[in-house]
Amino acid sequence: MSYQAPLRDMRFVMHELFDISAHCQTLGNGLERELVDDVLEEAARYASEVVAPLNRNSDEQGASLVDGQVTTPDGFSEAYRQYVDNGWASMTGPADFGGQALPQLLACNFHEMLMGASLSFRIYSGLTEGAVLALNVHGSEELKQAYLHKLVSGEWTGTMCLTEPQAGTDLALLRTKAEPQTDGSYRVSGNKIFISGGEQDLSENIVHLVLARLPDAPAGVKGISLLLVPKFIANADGSLGQRNALSCGALEHKMGIKGAATCVMNFDGATGWLVGEANQGLAGMFTMMNDARFQVGLQGLGIAEAAYQGALRYARERLQSRALTGPAAPEKAADPIIVHPDVRRMLLTQKTLVEGSRMLAAYTARLLDLEHGHPDAAARKAAGKRVALLIPIVKAFFTDMGQEVASHAVQVYGGHGYIREWGIEQLMRDSRITQLYEGTNGIQALDYIRRKLLGDGGQQLAELCDEFTQLCAAQAQRPALQAMATTVQARFVECGELTAQVIAACKRDPQEIGACSVDFLQYCAYVLLAGFWLQAAARAQDQLDAGDTDAEFYQAKLHSANFYLQRILPRASMHREALLGGADCLMAMPEASFAF
Amino acid sequence: MSYQAPLRDMRFVMHELFDISAHCQTLGNGLERELVDDVLEEAARYASEVVAPLNRNSDEQGASLVDGQVTTPDGFSEAYRQYVDNGWASMTGPADFGGQALPQLLACNFHEMLMGASLSFRIYSGLTEGAVLALNVHGSEELKQAYLHKLVSGEWTGTMCLTEPQAGTDLALLRTKAEPQTDGSYRVSGNKIFISGGEQDLSENIVHLVLARLPDAPAGVKGISLLLVPKFIANADGSLGQRNALSCGALEHKMGIKGAATCVMNFDGATGWLVGEANQGLAGMFTMMNDARFQVGLQGLGIAEAAYQGALRYARERLQSRALTGPAAPEKAADPIIVHPDVRRMLLTQKTLVEGSRMLAAYTARLLDLEHGHPDAAARKAAGKRVALLIPIVKAFFTDMGQEVASHAVQVYGGHGYIREWGIEQLMRDSRITQLYEGTNGIQALDYIRRKLLGDGGQQLAELCDEFTQLCAAQAQRPALQAMATTVQARFVECGELTAQVIAACKRDPQEIGACSVDFLQYCAYVLLAGFWLQAAARAQDQLDAGDTDAEFYQAKLHSANFYLQRILPRASMHREALLGGADCLMAMPEASFAF
Repeated sequence: MSYQAPLRDMRFVMHELFDISAHCQTLGNGLERELVDDVLEEAARYASEVVAPLNRNSDEQGASLVDGQVTTPDGFSEAYRQYVDNGWASMTGPADFGGQALPQLLACNFHEMLMGASLSFRIYSGLTEGAVLALNVHGSEELKQAYLHKLVSGEWTGTMCLTEPQAGTDLALLRTKAEPQTDGSYRVSGNKIFISGGEQDLSENIVHLVLARLPDAPAGVKGISLLLVPKFIANADGSLGQRNALSCGALEHKMGIKGAATCVMNFDGATGWLVGEANQGLAGMFTMMNDARFQVGLQGLGIAEAAYQGALRYARERLQSRALTGPAAPEKAADPIIVHPDVRRMLLTQKTLVEGSRMLAAYTARLLDLEHGHPDAAARKAAGKRVALLIPIVKAFFTDMGQEVASHAVQVYGGHGYIREWGIEQLMRDSRITQLYEGTNGIQALDYIRRKLLGDGGQQLAELCDEFTQLCAAQAQRPALQAMATTVQARFVECGELTAQVIAACKRDPQEIGACSVDFLQYCAYVLLAGFWLQAAARAQDQLDAGDTDAEFYQAKLHSANFYLQRILPRASMHREALLGGADCLMAMPEASFAF
Repeated sequence: MSYQAPLRDMRFVMHELFDISAHCQTLGNGLERELVDDVLEEAARYASEVVAPLNRNSDEQGASLVDGQVTTPDGFSEAYRQYVDNGWASMTGPADFGGQALPQLLACNFHEMLMGASLSFRIYSGLTEGAVLALNVHGSEELKQAYLHKLVSGEWTGTMCLTEPQAGTDLALLRTKAEPQTDGSYRVSGNKIFISGGEQDLSENIVHLVLARLPDAPAGVKGISLLLVPKFIANADGSLGQRNALSCGALEHKMGIKGAATCVMNFDGATGWLVGEANQGLAGMFTMMNDARFQVGLQGLGIAEAAYQGALRYARERLQSRALTGPAAPEKAADPIIVHPDVRRMLLTQKTLVEGSRMLAAYTARLLDLEHGHPDAAARKAAGKRVALLIPIVKAFFTDMGQEVASHAVQVYGGHGYIREWGIEQLMRDSRITQLYEGTNGIQALDYIRRKLLGDGGQQLAELCDEFTQLCAAQAQRPALQAMATTVQARFVECGELTAQVIAACKRDPQEIGACSVDFLQYCAYVLLAGFWLQAAARAQDQLDAGDTDAEFYQAKLHSANFYLQRILPRASMHREALLGGADCLMAMPEASFAF
């Protein structure tokens, strides 16, 4: 499958909606529009010309393990070399350690492209940035000096070693041990599963961030520590030292992302060092996890874009049947299937979910930049709160969306969508993991309700709704946008009321937290996207009013916004009705009766 | 993955809801309850002990093609021999040709079991029954005598050869030719793709039913003929004769159903005979297709049941985290995940979609029996009309449902759901084909609106709604069921109003047909299932009122009905709102603008 980066839409979002130049000035990091666009075009070339062509074969060939060595699919090694050599690895890394410190508002576009070009390939590098973040925030100066430069450059990669067979969602059940040694290091022993890129042939070293328990650790999640356990121990000067006592015991056989090595990792008294304080490992892990969850959201988005492109290409080429109103292409044997309303329904569902999500991704990326880089501490804190609210939505909604959009693509292809050679069914298989890892989407929804909503009594969500309500009120004054603005405004008002009901219900009965979580997250996501679509429509209308020469692009934004409100936003009604059904109808059934 | 036939629920549906004994009397085919139950238990044993154990390996091993010969996965051949020897193949076959002529109301349960045990295995036999039907209705006496006995017994299998590379949905584009010979036979030449079981090593002969054009045929679908083209030409006594000029050129590489050989079939001047009149091939094909679409619906149902069983087993065994209200199993390291409301939400979604669909399947099977076997011609015709209305719903809704339920199962398993060894992701991959073949679900929805709804001005749907409205009115009198009955009744009233709106819109603008089709089919399906859930609840309440000793089973039905109405039925609201969005928002976007 070919992949073309959606540059026009990315520029619209970065420049026209979120004014990346002004954003960079706020961050104290001057970045001209031309440079932004140049970076984006080079990124697009790398993603579409270097990475995308590897994806189909990577699925057939897979990653393989022989005598403890992993071989990645053909071409991954060379593409990864370019990734490092051309500075793509260091885009967002801290300047102190050789990084380019470019904003997430720019980088998120490149990362989306990588996901769309080849999720399997991106997985090998995707956790390094999070490892850099965690190490930079929580690591000792010695560890930083020894490991960060090469992690930032991408010469070394990072992994995240959480899961054990008995401990997935529930980290309290972790058994991996870390025993203190007299030299300040720890001996780490245990078995981890589902470790993405735990072993590979792309980078010269692999730095594992491992959750483990110290001998005297309290039970549960308050007794978990984070350790850096490298494949090769770095010398003080950052050169490669001794091989550590850890190994890849097996690769998982998976539904998709077959080019990505998903490893069983055995730590056999491997040498490691604490990152952060003893028993405070979850803090470090969550620093990494927030980045990882945002990245996984981008995986859903990237795959969705790729799936939409495939479906659109096929729908314009495939000739079957005639339009309901008579032949549209009478000179051909049949009409291209894009003339059929139901095919258009699928395509526009894809397009508006993808573009709507891209706006939310950029909005969140911008806040991530502000959280980490705004000169004012209060602004950093405020941005951080909003990021915390949005991360579970980005992770869960985008990945559910990615799976849906990939499935629509298969459907547009008809029977051919089921055939591997076309590359479309691979997107469904690849994207399915994104709903599961870095916390299942059910866990995201629990986090959203429990920590993010109940954590502040709904204040952050209320503020966000208020901002959109103001946008609606302003746009409702414009005749061309009045109908749309009114529709969206009604939803934000409804959202405020529903939030109050949800909070009250959860306070009354803790079971309601889990009973409404997924539906409420989805409800909020659809309403938020409606807000962004109104924002896009407003901007498009501005340009049309100003006589912009790119009128077709802006007109398409108006059509898309209208489609989203008419055809997609009704999903919010369903989620609202369903969650108002409450917990009783979930909890009343005795466990044994499920088996009838 | 193990599979256990849901015998208790099947008995509930067959005996308690649809009184199969009385049904058989109507058909003039006395069948005692004990015999029905015995058949079902034997069927369950065959499905769970003989077929299900083959499924996991069949996915890894796949079907293979060497020198034109297909090898099916290990064990398929022996399991198929039992299928024939023990009379499973001939269950529904006509008595005149050695069949047992058992009702579909019984057989649909067996077929659901086969789908749940191994879709790949079932595919090899799944089209034979349709071929028997088409041949029995449309074939000449000579063809019937030569081919039907062994097709009915299962010694020979049937296929359906429609699709060509340029002709999928659009059969008007068919190019395969059939040239008349002086002996009354035809020489058939052309290439067909996506032919399930086009070649295999299970049966001694394969009888292809092929769509082709005669030399003087009019263009389009009015110029298509149906031909019987056997792998080996049968002698007059039914023994195997000459090998015909047809071959399997390749097997497709697919997302799933890897154990099923999906063949490219080349007909190189093969000898065939007309089934039915020249240029009337679609009639014969639709006889077969209606059966095939019902069977594909059962595929969705069977896989969904298997997925639910897997998810339930895992949810009761997997220990992660504590219940929101405090430890439920304090003696264990964590609670089984079935205590979590969101896991219950997924399980109950699966359970109520599966059981609701099973009621609609049985209802449709009963009508199929009446259509073909009622002694009164008017009753046969009336049943046939309702079957015609329901087939696209059964096909499209059940298969979308199957995919959803399989995906929920993966989600319940968390990361483990993505690992092939567990067998759960295979269900997602296997079931994905069911939304595509025998007419994509979009095509089912078009058929539903265009032929089934607009074809009679909505009369058949109105009558069906009326029957359920009467059920609602009666049950609303019972205090225990009043709330449920009122909810369901409101939906059937709404359905009537919506139907009128849909018909009016489609008459005004043909684009509305395709613009509302999928949403309207889904809307109707969810409302119909609500009707069946009320019927189940009514029956359960009867038994509880009568002091039945199986109270837990009936109580579970009431819980399930309530869950369905509270948590699933809101989907109808979404589909209604979305389709009322109309066609304009689909058609307004210029084709070129999709690419922005």
